[in-house]
Amino acid sequence: MPLSIRAKSSCRFDLVALGEVMLRLDPGDERITTTRHFRVWEGGGEYNVARGLKRCFGLDTAVVTALVDNPVGRLVQDLIYQGGVDQSYLRWVPDDGVGRRVRNGLNFVERGFGVRAAVGCSDRGHTAVSQLTPGTIDWDRLFGKDGVRWFHTGGIFAALSESTAAVAEEAMTAAKRHGAIVSYDLNYRESLWKGIGGKERARTVNRALARQVDVMLGNEEDFTAALGFSIEGVDENYTKLDAAAYKPMIDAVLREYPNLSVVATTLRVARSASLNDWGAPCAAPHSTAQAAPRTARSP
Amino acid sequence: MPLSIRAKSSCRFDLVALGEVMLRLDPGDERITTTRHFRVWEGGGEYNVARGLKRCFGLDTAVVTALVDNPVGRLVQDLIYQGGVDQSYLRWVPDDGVGRRVRNGLNFVERGFGVRAAVGCSDRGHTAVSQLTPGTIDWDRLFGKDGVRWFHTGGIFAALSESTAAVAEEAMTAAKRHGAIVSYDLNYRESLWKGIGGKERARTVNRALARQVDVMLGNEEDFTAALGFSIEGVDENYTKLDAAAYKPMIDAVLREYPNLSVVATTLRVARSASLNDWGAPCAAPHSTAQAAPRTARSP
Amino acid sequence: MPLSIRAKSSCRFDLVALGEVMLRLDPGDERITTTRHFRVWEGGGEYNVARGLKRCFGLDTAVVTALVDNPVGRLVQDLIYQGGVDQSYLRWVPDDGVGRRVRNGLNFVERGFGVRAAVGCSDRGHTAVSQLTPGTIDWDRLFGKDGVRWFHTGGIFAALSESTAAVAEEAMTAAKRHGAIVSYDLNYRESLWKGIGGKERARTVNRALARQVDVMLGNEEDFTAALGFSIEGVDENYTKLDAAAYKPMIDAVLREYPNLSVVATTLRVARSASLNDWGAPCAAPHSTAQAAPRTARSP
Amino acid sequence: MPLSIRAKSSCRFDLVALGEVMLRLDPGDERITTTRHFRVWEGGGEYNVARGLKRCFGLDTAVVTALVDNPVGRLVQDLIYQGGVDQSYLRWVPDDGVGRRVRNGLNFVERGFGVRAAVGCSDRGHTAVSQLTPGTIDWDRLFGKDGVRWFHTGGIFAALSESTAAVAEEAMTAAKRHGAIVSYDLNYRESLWKGIGGKERARTVNRALARQVDVMLGNEEDFTAALGFSIEGVDENYTKLDAAAYKPMIDAVLREYPNLSVVATTLRVARSASLNDWGAPCAAPHSTAQAAPRTARSP
Amino acid sequence: MPLSIRAKSSCRFDLVALGEVMLRLDPGDERITTTRHFRVWEGGGEYNVARGLKRCFGLDTAVVTALVDNPVGRLVQDLIYQGGVDQSYLRWVPDDGVGRRVRNGLNFVERGFGVRAAVGCSDRGHTAVSQLTPGTIDWDRLFGKDGVRWFHTGGIFAALSESTAAVAEEAMTAAKRHGAIVSYDLNYRESLWKGIGGKERARTVNRALARQVDVMLGNEEDFTAALGFSIEGVDENYTKLDAAAYKPMIDAVLREYPNLSVVATTLRVARSASLNDWGAPCAAPHSTAQAAPRTARSP
Amino acid sequence: MPLSIRAKSSCRFDLVALGEVMLRLDPGDERITTTRHFRVWEGGGEYNVARGLKRCFGLDTAVVTALVDNPVGRLVQDLIYQGGVDQSYLRWVPDDGVGRRVRNGLNFVERGFGVRAAVGCSDRGHTAVSQLTPGTIDWDRLFGKDGVRWFHTGGIFAALSESTAAVAEEAMTAAKRHGAIVSYDLNYRESLWKGIGGKERARTVNRALARQVDVMLGNEEDFTAALGFSIEGVDENYTKLDAAAYKPMIDAVLREYPNLSVVATTLRVARSASLNDWGAPCAAPHSTAQAAPRTARSP
Repeated sequence: MPLSIRAKSSCRFDLVALGEVMLRLDPGDERITTTRHFRVWEGGGEYNVARGLKRCFGLDTAVVTALVDNPVGRLVQDLIYQGGVDQSYLRWVPDDGVGRRVRNGLNFVERGFGVRAAVGCSDRGHTAVSQLTPGTIDWDRLFGKDGVRWFHTGGIFAALSESTAAVAEEAMTAAKRHGAIVSYDLNYRESLWKGIGGKERARTVNRALARQVDVMLGNEEDFTAALGFSIEGVDENYTKLDAAAYKPMIDAVLREYPNLSVVATTLRVARSASLNDWGAPCAAPHSTAQAAPRTARSP
Repeated sequence: MPLSIRAKSSCRFDLVALGEVMLRLDPGDERITTTRHFRVWEGGGEYNVARGLKRCFGLDTAVVTALVDNPVGRLVQDLIYQGGVDQSYLRWVPDDGVGRRVRNGLNFVERGFGVRAAVGCSDRGHTAVSQLTPGTIDWDRLFGKDGVRWFHTGGIFAALSESTAAVAEEAMTAAKRHGAIVSYDLNYRESLWKGIGGKERARTVNRALARQVDVMLGNEEDFTAALGFSIEGVDENYTKLDAAAYKPMIDAVLREYPNLSVVATTLRVARSASLNDWGAPCAAPHSTAQAAPRTARSP
Repeated sequence: MPLSIRAKSSCRFDLVALGEVMLRLDPGDERITTTRHFRVWEGGGEYNVARGLKRCFGLDTAVVTALVDNPVGRLVQDLIYQGGVDQSYLRWVPDDGVGRRVRNGLNFVERGFGVRAAVGCSDRGHTAVSQLTPGTIDWDRLFGKDGVRWFHTGGIFAALSESTAAVAEEAMTAAKRHGAIVSYDLNYRESLWKGIGGKERARTVNRALARQVDVMLGNEEDFTAALGFSIEGVDENYTKLDAAAYKPMIDAVLREYPNLSVVATTLRVARSASLNDWGAPCAAPHSTAQAAPRTARSP
Repeated sequence: MPLSIRAKSSCRFDLVALGEVMLRLDPGDERITTTRHFRVWEGGGEYNVARGLKRCFGLDTAVVTALVDNPVGRLVQDLIYQGGVDQSYLRWVPDDGVGRRVRNGLNFVERGFGVRAAVGCSDRGHTAVSQLTPGTIDWDRLFGKDGVRWFHTGGIFAALSESTAAVAEEAMTAAKRHGAIVSYDLNYRESLWKGIGGKERARTVNRALARQVDVMLGNEEDFTAALGFSIEGVDENYTKLDAAAYKPMIDAVLREYPNLSVVATTLRVARSASLNDWGAPCAAPHSTAQAAPRTARSP
Repeated sequence: MPLSIRAKSSCRFDLVALGEVMLRLDPGDERITTTRHFRVWEGGGEYNVARGLKRCFGLDTAVVTALVDNPVGRLVQDLIYQGGVDQSYLRWVPDDGVGRRVRNGLNFVERGFGVRAAVGCSDRGHTAVSQLTPGTIDWDRLFGKDGVRWFHTGGIFAALSESTAAVAEEAMTAAKRHGAIVSYDLNYRESLWKGIGGKERARTVNRALARQVDVMLGNEEDFTAALGFSIEGVDENYTKLDAAAYKPMIDAVLREYPNLSVVATTLRVARSASLNDWGAPCAAPHSTAQAAPRTARSP
Repeated sequence: MPLSIRAKSSCRFDLVALGEVMLRLDPGDERITTTRHFRVWEGGGEYNVARGLKRCFGLDTAVVTALVDNPVGRLVQDLIYQGGVDQSYLRWVPDDGVGRRVRNGLNFVERGFGVRAAVGCSDRGHTAVSQLTPGTIDWDRLFGKDGVRWFHTGGIFAALSESTAAVAEEAMTAAKRHGAIVSYDLNYRESLWKGIGGKERARTVNRALARQVDVMLGNEEDFTAALGFSIEGVDENYTKLDAAAYKPMIDAVLREYPNLSVVATTLRVARSASLNDWGAPCAAPHSTAQAAPRTARSP
């Protein structure tokens, strides 16, 4: 089914992302466990798409999310302002003063170097966005009155809580009703699903949501762990960049979900924490494309 | 009842503190809501006593607390190492990877300046230390085999959860059994009690614990809010440094709790966020002392 | 003439400012002439009003200005994004690669301390905004279709070049045509007028613009130097905060410009570079108000 | 014509450079368009030769240039002091307070990384040094009374304005009159010439100056664009380090300008922004030399 | 002779190191000669073993050393606290106020990059630890009452002064008396021996101490320069990682010193300052092992 | 005896200072004992006069001193370059690699704040400049051929070692022989004299040098401790700024040393570490002057 996108003239937003925006704490060249300074940024799997499209490509984007109204939440807001992403649909939740009932998400992340892998330590339990429930966001105003060309969400948001999976479904339904393209990044995170039903629950949720998706994104692990497909002939550690090996799996995905217009996969081989090979095959029902593989060295 | 302290020769520790150690995130001269950098420190009301006695006065001190075993917890550990406070009784709790079940406490704090008040934003729900329960710490080994001259805890620790109040009681009982002096800093925090029973519960807990205390610390708000005493003739905003005005209340406290050997109160009048007057009266049943009031300007 | 403000419901913007946005280079605690590091900010007399209303008071504001499309201009854009001020009416001008034909404005500013005065060094010749000409901005779309409740510009923008004074007049006329309140900050800068006609020209320009203003802002020097009024009984160095002394001058201003609804003056007495007394009288034709004088110490 | 250099004993300076010194603003590991901090340095094509000879090799060097006497100019002076380069012939020009009539040159430069090229953004219009005119510098005192062994200038200085080309000629004539060796770095910059006559004018100016030069420096682009020579068999993108390919062109240069004692060319092949191959052939009328090619990785 | 290690249950310390702890001043990405900022760390050849075992492997370690009791010494103490290494046996020496009689050791170190070698500049004359004399430390209390499983010292400590070599001998004797394993890192530094007898003296001291060692560490230069062995067939610049080439020398060492249980050698080939190949053969009288060679790139 | 100063036209230097230049390590807003970062500067009592006259007043100045030729010495050189002070008479001494025989001076200094006094920790034993001996510097070339209008040294340099006192005398004699004015800052430092003869030796040295001085500088403590005068009616802690109280002492100094043309004294009363009152009386045989007292608050 070829993708058909609404005209910019009738839409306030080129893209709207639904997901969590966390405060990212980054020790720079040092390590989390011994640093004395953190640089802060904002980030989140779904939000990053909206931010990149705004600041790298100049598109008009917005984020649907929720934050606690305390100084940490307001700092995330300041970072979103710098990111140029519209905040009209950001919900502010009252603070309880200590973070027992509701919190803002934090993500401590350090870079790897050579033989030392990168380290992430997310602190995102009980966040405002994980408590978002269906019926809260006025999706018809967003997709209808304001107008949106493309809606993006993903498997991290859907794994935050039982209610966020329902919110994702509600949003997708509304998006399709108003003609927005729907993309979904599977982004399987075992640690998030572990506490709310594990891989079984992940597959149930993702398979249901996949029925409403136009453009499905994910890497090889996502398709297997989050949707239950399997890849023949690919070794356990996913150390090969050979896009051809993924062709049968992608074909199976397209067969299983005929609603999909595009399936895109990123392939990474980490030669060391500093040196990675990247590839990106992209498939539509009757055609495929592939970015030239390239190697990137991090600083 | 005059205080009698155990000989140093029979004790491994001069003082042991029981309480939470949080990661303190400090934007320096900037504000939390617009900064891009945080300096980190460790801190906590009860722990600060152990750290100050170690690094300012050279005493041997330890902290009893709990942390999640993830990079943030290990950073707090690194800061406690720098503080020189013994960690033998620090409990490490396994990480769930996302901070839903158990977390480490964080405290975002910015300095006030002139007419602008200081700002604190604590994020301490669901912390490892708040889940500490009686029967976990080997108090007899600590107070008996190792030996401790002075045990300190307080009203912040007791307000973390229902179980921490019980742990405080268990610890005090063991301390007294082995001859350690027990001090308690009331440190009333409305935001902490709000979610677990409010001021009523605070008074119940603090009054029960007060029966085991030798040295009681607190300011005027603590004695009224946390223990239920009242001060006649002191205006609502506590803007006076007149130590004499507190005499009747302190006398009442000493009468009500004959187990107390010393009651000490700090008095502060904030002329601006940068300029504070400080006083510190200290009373024993038949004598009083008082530090000369002084004025301090912060940078 | 009492001020009448348009309903928020019919306006996209609470306030729109017309003026230059410069890159501000700030050596922190050091001095420009010996530093090795600059912190950067964005700023400009008229723009600062829009930014403050957005980030301190949450109003929807925009800036009308122009920047050269090079990395320095894009950095100013990044800072305006962080400021949350709408950029839809920001004009991007092509770069000539060396800054001969058109540039972005820079402002090097260091703080004073005690007996040492603050230092400013502006580098704003040949800027894109100074080359703005009438007929460029679609004011009817801004004030009509989008809707604006309050329009603000001032004497710095009017002094950038001959054409900016004409742009200010064009904007004010359009603002009034669409019912927006017009405010003007005299902000007299001798250095800017020096090269384009001096004080004589300043008075001619400001007097003509004043006829369209609803709310006129300025300090005592502005009313005398930029509009030609005089203050009896005020000493040469303006070292008094006595608001009453300015009453006769403000009355004269209100008589001379019956179109004015409000005249507001800030009074400052610099006791040292670090210690200033501030006052702020505000007058309408038949009433006056005055902020309580206060003293502020800078860090 | 073999080079003959004056004795050190009769010369105050080993080398004098004539050119602009700009304030260089460097965002470190970040990018200009999103940074909040700049490290500052001083720099300029001709000046860098004098600074390197002083601080790497300990020679006595001076710079002839001009700066506006404001805090930015004095910061450049502070950096030149640190560079150890004599400032006796630096001309200070009065400030107009806003940078309309005369300014100091600025250069915003960010490092490339991997596939991302380095970025430069120079802001050098209307600078003090571009307004230098013949008759201003006392060249006879410099080359005669003080004594100079080697004089260096180049095509950037000659492209600043019509008058700087004349100053370069005046300086060279004086240098040769007093026995100083004259070197010239062609350093062709299209952006500088674009506004003052383009490539045609560049060739006219450089060809005239080349008649007075003893040592001519440049890369392959310089000899073609700035002097009008052509290289047979070298591909368009100059991606080869094969020094032999440049031999015919250098021979042609030596034939055309018999006054030249040495022609030196640097060859660079950028494998990525971080990884460059370098070569450096150097030719005299009857001999050639060549540095061993080497590869350098930037951080 | 196989190594036999004492049970942890009877020992307070897993390892005790005897050596100097210097304040390390590190200019980061800049160079010592032009920087304006230093990051400080603590370090010392023997101490680093104790610190690494504590913070990377969680073992209980202590350092025996001496510092002057002034702010620099107390800063080193603060760093040792952060390192988690026990300071009970650190001797504090009174300050003379100017550093004539006794000082703390400093070590200025900058990283190499590519063709530029790393630079070290140690300033460790007249240090407190170099004035340590036999009879000062209560070794029997340390090795006997407290209990130590492994004692480590080395050729840097032994080269600080005539008295430190005697202290090393005294410590080793006590260690062996109480059953601690003794390791010794030869770590030959020509600059240290130069002023106190040169290579001859180094060999005399090291050979005497070697008689008490269980585990001997060193690279190829150490065995030749510090102990007087020679390696056949290894080229002058030690540019080969071929562990087999060192086999005959290590066999000779084991023959000469039958008291040795293990000899371990690290092999490094510096391909550039940023890229090094590492190997590590380890030999016992009747067996050898070898770490897989690996290549490490520094940032 | 009125001062008569040589014409600038016959002198290369307005002032030459003889003294030590130390590397100053400054923890900024933090404390030495807990910081992790130092900002570095250069400084020294006598040198600071030359630097201030150069960079604040634009005079041509030089320093006579000695440094070890290692990276720390070269860093001090870089700082002196930035200071603009001529280094022609700076002696470079070979490094021994470890700092046993000869070193560069270091000075760790932290700011006081409020009730907390400033802290200094100098590490200047065995420095190159303390080993300077008579006969090393070519004073006749400096004062004769180059020409110097004013020579400055002081009691810190004279206290570095026995030989520096002799060098000071040699320099003064040469200065006077060539018509340079000689100034001397007593600057008594007990810690420096303590190890080389104490206050007795200080008085002997300073009294001998005073015979050659034209302008004598010092505070009340200097005249008493270093020259042996006494002040009647001044309390022990020198807490008064009353310049009149010092008149009798200054008169006595002028009587005892008829060679003095001027005696200048600075008076300071430290109200806190952040707030100081300053005064500065200056006396010639038949006249006195005095700077208006002022109060300065440090940041």
